[in-house]
Amino acid sequence: MRAYVDRFSLTDPGDVSALKAAFDSGAVKPERVVAVIGKTPGNGLTNDYTRGYLTQSLALLISDYTGVSRERVTATIPFIFSGGVEGVLSPHYSVFSVDDSGADRVDGEPALALATAFTAPLIAVEIGGQGQIDATRDAVRSAMASAGIERAEDVHFVQVKGPCLTASAISEARRAGAGPVADTPEHSMALSRIASAFGVGLALGEIDATRFHYDSARLDPNCFSSVASCSAGVEVQANEIVVLGNSRRWHGPLRIGHRPMADALDLAAVVGVFEDLGLAPGPQLSDAQSRRLRSVLVKCEPDRTGRIRGEPHTMLNDGDMNAQRHIRAAVGALVAGVCGDTRLFVSGGAEHQGPDGGGLIAAIASVDGEP
Amino acid sequence: MRAYVDRFSLTDPGDVSALKAAFDSGAVKPERVVAVIGKTPGNGLTNDYTRGYLTQSLALLISDYTGVSRERVTATIPFIFSGGVEGVLSPHYSVFSVDDSGADRVDGEPALALATAFTAPLIAVEIGGQGQIDATRDAVRSAMASAGIERAEDVHFVQVKGPCLTASAISEARRAGAGPVADTPEHSMALSRIASAFGVGLALGEIDATRFHYDSARLDPNCFSSVASCSAGVEVQANEIVVLGNSRRWHGPLRIGHRPMADALDLAAVVGVFEDLGLAPGPQLSDAQSRRLRSVLVKCEPDRTGRIRGEPHTMLNDGDMNAQRHIRAAVGALVAGVCGDTRLFVSGGAEHQGPDGGGLIAAIASVDGEP
Amino acid sequence: MRAYVDRFSLTDPGDVSALKAAFDSGAVKPERVVAVIGKTPGNGLTNDYTRGYLTQSLALLISDYTGVSRERVTATIPFIFSGGVEGVLSPHYSVFSVDDSGADRVDGEPALALATAFTAPLIAVEIGGQGQIDATRDAVRSAMASAGIERAEDVHFVQVKGPCLTASAISEARRAGAGPVADTPEHSMALSRIASAFGVGLALGEIDATRFHYDSARLDPNCFSSVASCSAGVEVQANEIVVLGNSRRWHGPLRIGHRPMADALDLAAVVGVFEDLGLAPGPQLSDAQSRRLRSVLVKCEPDRTGRIRGEPHTMLNDGDMNAQRHIRAAVGALVAGVCGDTRLFVSGGAEHQGPDGGGLIAAIASVDGEP
Amino acid sequence: MRAYVDRFSLTDPGDVSALKAAFDSGAVKPERVVAVIGKTPGNGLTNDYTRGYLTQSLALLISDYTGVSRERVTATIPFIFSGGVEGVLSPHYSVFSVDDSGADRVDGEPALALATAFTAPLIAVEIGGQGQIDATRDAVRSAMASAGIERAEDVHFVQVKGPCLTASAISEARRAGAGPVADTPEHSMALSRIASAFGVGLALGEIDATRFHYDSARLDPNCFSSVASCSAGVEVQANEIVVLGNSRRWHGPLRIGHRPMADALDLAAVVGVFEDLGLAPGPQLSDAQSRRLRSVLVKCEPDRTGRIRGEPHTMLNDGDMNAQRHIRAAVGALVAGVCGDTRLFVSGGAEHQGPDGGGLIAAIASVDGEP
Repeated sequence: MRAYVDRFSLTDPGDVSALKAAFDSGAVKPERVVAVIGKTPGNGLTNDYTRGYLTQSLALLISDYTGVSRERVTATIPFIFSGGVEGVLSPHYSVFSVDDSGADRVDGEPALALATAFTAPLIAVEIGGQGQIDATRDAVRSAMASAGIERAEDVHFVQVKGPCLTASAISEARRAGAGPVADTPEHSMALSRIASAFGVGLALGEIDATRFHYDSARLDPNCFSSVASCSAGVEVQANEIVVLGNSRRWHGPLRIGHRPMADALDLAAVVGVFEDLGLAPGPQLSDAQSRRLRSVLVKCEPDRTGRIRGEPHTMLNDGDMNAQRHIRAAVGALVAGVCGDTRLFVSGGAEHQGPDGGGLIAAIASVDGEP
Repeated sequence: MRAYVDRFSLTDPGDVSALKAAFDSGAVKPERVVAVIGKTPGNGLTNDYTRGYLTQSLALLISDYTGVSRERVTATIPFIFSGGVEGVLSPHYSVFSVDDSGADRVDGEPALALATAFTAPLIAVEIGGQGQIDATRDAVRSAMASAGIERAEDVHFVQVKGPCLTASAISEARRAGAGPVADTPEHSMALSRIASAFGVGLALGEIDATRFHYDSARLDPNCFSSVASCSAGVEVQANEIVVLGNSRRWHGPLRIGHRPMADALDLAAVVGVFEDLGLAPGPQLSDAQSRRLRSVLVKCEPDRTGRIRGEPHTMLNDGDMNAQRHIRAAVGALVAGVCGDTRLFVSGGAEHQGPDGGGLIAAIASVDGEP
Repeated sequence: MRAYVDRFSLTDPGDVSALKAAFDSGAVKPERVVAVIGKTPGNGLTNDYTRGYLTQSLALLISDYTGVSRERVTATIPFIFSGGVEGVLSPHYSVFSVDDSGADRVDGEPALALATAFTAPLIAVEIGGQGQIDATRDAVRSAMASAGIERAEDVHFVQVKGPCLTASAISEARRAGAGPVADTPEHSMALSRIASAFGVGLALGEIDATRFHYDSARLDPNCFSSVASCSAGVEVQANEIVVLGNSRRWHGPLRIGHRPMADALDLAAVVGVFEDLGLAPGPQLSDAQSRRLRSVLVKCEPDRTGRIRGEPHTMLNDGDMNAQRHIRAAVGALVAGVCGDTRLFVSGGAEHQGPDGGGLIAAIASVDGEP
Repeated sequence: MRAYVDRFSLTDPGDVSALKAAFDSGAVKPERVVAVIGKTPGNGLTNDYTRGYLTQSLALLISDYTGVSRERVTATIPFIFSGGVEGVLSPHYSVFSVDDSGADRVDGEPALALATAFTAPLIAVEIGGQGQIDATRDAVRSAMASAGIERAEDVHFVQVKGPCLTASAISEARRAGAGPVADTPEHSMALSRIASAFGVGLALGEIDATRFHYDSARLDPNCFSSVASCSAGVEVQANEIVVLGNSRRWHGPLRIGHRPMADALDLAAVVGVFEDLGLAPGPQLSDAQSRRLRSVLVKCEPDRTGRIRGEPHTMLNDGDMNAQRHIRAAVGALVAGVCGDTRLFVSGGAEHQGPDGGGLIAAIASVDGEP
């Protein structure tokens, strides 16, 4: 088994000509595509339709090239997009492909390994509730098994995209007396992310399943997963999951690493994750080293105390610019400064995903000198 | 002569109790205050009234403590505020004080030197035009002489706050047939900044006065000042100027340095300016070194080509979040990551202030081990 | 007793020259001013400092003209500003003055009557809680008595401005274990408005005090006051209250009326309130009739079901433009179209202030042919 | 010939199930669809991708039902979407269909008539320039001929959607030395709308072709078309045009009327256009009359003088909320108040489309008692 990761720039979610060209040239094999993760040029909030638009565009393209129906494509390939490319960030998508034609290995150097999973569709009362937690936990375990990753410590990043409720959906669920749901669309997005994160943490043993109570866990900033990266959006009905790790059963030059970020200024964590992969930021990666990067994945969150290292920030009080847009712009630039590259997956809403007020960073790089 | 710089946190522009406490304790002498530069929690655009509000609040306080009338206080002390503390940035203000009680020196180690100047009030047609350029040039030269800075190369930062036109003012000026003015308030802010920057560049010889033509200079990205930091706001009628440099005539432990920034990812420039001041970012300053910082001043600008190091950014196409808010959040975090401190003066609108698509950074630090 | 209401345009909250000119000309007597209600050009959300700025500017002016200290002016005159002049709305403030020099009447035509009241400062745990409800109820009753308004049905508008919590204040209150407070600054603003509205409703008997339970009342859209208009902002520490009604003890040509609004399209209510005051919109008031208006006061709210008359709206899903900004722009224009005037006090956040998804409108007009 | 207009609600641009249901039930015949005009839930500015998304979704659906390729569908059916449903406005789209199976009439009551046209793709230097003007003029004349509308006065609404330039496209065009283009994406949108409007005005004789000079026309607020409604967006490469009028050659119960709007408070024009169609607003249409509406089309614009009827507005100074979002919310609510319906096509950017600072309104209604 061998994994490939190819990044493509994006300016308009209706224009997927870059991937089309890669299909045409043979650089990417359409039938090997198993997941797409990317950043789209919307606001990353409830009314961000760029995620759904890019999904539709890519599913059409892949359907055209593989002959698989659009419905089947979107039901089997997670298209996980986080909106919001604030500041220096660049809209792009990373295509994850798997070549399973070779014989299985068991004893080589660990290489990038990955698998995907989908939960069943979630109904309103499950979104942000125990139903979503349980379904996520089971799906993550299933994906680990598919990927041949045996140890939880070899999992370095779990991307989850889950559904959330619009204002109308909240209102309808309440009229239907379906059970407790979120107060607002933004609240629903947060609860969906939290439930997904708890599901990942439970699957990997980062959270002690024997002592887990949802309501108290939500109030406990120390209850988190260090590898969960969870998004929510109106364009999906089920949790879509991509598990990324290293495994001796896979081969190729790609490796993944990760670090928790203690706060939004944790430059040491950013530098550290690249050092873990054998790169040497000084403090910025050289052009040659930067070209060895395949994907950089970051979750971040405005500190809820209203302060960073003792000084007030204004992100949570700003009525015109959402706090998630603030923090993505900030942490995105911190990481881009070290990478020398702006094609980063930087996603806000890191509740219970890494340390409170901080978040996490993962990176995939080629260990070969050649990118 | 000896200069002092004290930073105060701010959460509400009507609350200046932090400076009041410093007056009461004797930590800052009210009669020595010569300038205040800071970041306020508005949007930093035309309709940002937090700048005027903090000016009014501080002028009242200083008037109460010195017995000088409010009108006289605002006419003699530049209060230069840039709105917009996006991302990790923290609202704050730096109070610049001068003790001129001691004898003049001429041959010591160069220390932080500063002086201020005001132009005459500018009328609508002068704002963003040749009138503002000439007035700024003369005022900068006058401030240099006051500060005892003889060589242009010893000037490291020139902060200018100039007026701009609201939509009504533009409309009135046009009805009055006064001459060419800006198309929109935002355009007026940009022209005001550009005229101020050219005035600084001409005063310091960074721009060749014998060959300067305004219209062609505006189109020439290589025509810039590396030390000009220019803002515009509806709350001032004249250009208010603070010149900061090093001079052997001044004493004390403070020094200032600066670096141009080639682009928004120029981490080397950020690290470099601290190294110039004898600090050793690794890549983040230690707490002890961070405490030696007195002021960090940054200008930045979204790259007008729509790309950073070859990849597209979305700052200039975003209809909901102004490009200046994007870039301040980004570059602010890049610098904060190195400083380990978020009380940074980061201002957008860096047209002709440092390299195109980049900007500049200046820092004031104590060279003593003690902060 | 006789009440006066004078409206002044505003462009910058630091510029109160229009009222200064009225003081200088004798058109308004500084010592008669008892309250100021207005709209400022901020965003009307937590980080809107234009309200505090205008308060500071007006308090300074009144202090200068009356010799009363600024502290005393702000402690005795409610300055109630709602931020956000979206769409056609025009920033302005209405100065309410009372001449109590004449003899009391008891039996004339009812004329505009008014009085003000302040609660004690509210601590964090009281804001949005029972403490704020009780304090508001008592203050409204006290103001009614002061105004000589005996019957609740003669009260047509009660403006309340109460405090709210910033992100930092919320975080501090939680650390201090003070008791339950709001989750977010926006949530705190909403709870403060709701508690104030319940206090008004209880004082006027619109809400049955014997059956009132806070938690169930909050969930009951039919539990509302038809005359309460409640705002919240970080610039006040206590509830500041202005009670407006008609009374036979007062004289002069001014009268006040009000109507509940069933939804955001309730044009009939808008037309009706002017007809109640003897004006004849056709559907727009003529210039002559429009000039008889002294103040138009509106509360409105985005329908929480996500629909208006069966069709979806997007106000509650918009991550870039706050729902209150949407609804103020909309309802402001609806009312302005009938008035032919844009100097309207239109305030969002009408939870339990008028019918759910609608709100209320009050107007003060001169019944004399002359304005 | 007979025209049909059917309105469909929209919540997500990827969900066109409402039209699909109409196709399935036979309520709308897929092969008769000639144009779609609607409002999508984006911001209506450069980075609004909801327009392209809905276009792609509808083209897919129509292609599935007609067997015509997607490329051919988008090349022959104008999909004209304006983003931004601020305030009470509801996202929706109106499907225009034509049944040309019957014999031509020549002498009946005038009924709704329509035709479409496309220009050739426009290159960067043509957008917002004379090339776009000329191409639009010719296309409008061609559509009039196709629709059998002989007199310009029988044209009541011409909808144009034209291309505009992103920041990157502007930068590229400049590097290529292609000729003058807009300064910013927003500027490009404005110039595209203006060029389209002049093209319509020239085609219909509203603007005197013998005296037309582009540069002076742009400065002349009296040079406008009263029936042009022009939008611009990155999702089209050519001008797409829909001409709507009344003609004796067509039959059926639908009629169109229009009125210029003098300013944003022109309630008389709104009432008037419905009276022209035989409806009787009082001032709001009754439910029965409201149901006879098929489409309401409005263009509006923030007054550039910064004032409305003498009082200042803040739309043009707001750095956080674009002026077009302000004015759409306002004028949309004014019109919705009269209609009692929120499914209105309200589009900003009305430069030279109706009177300066105002705009225009058109409406299509059934003259039969039955809707």
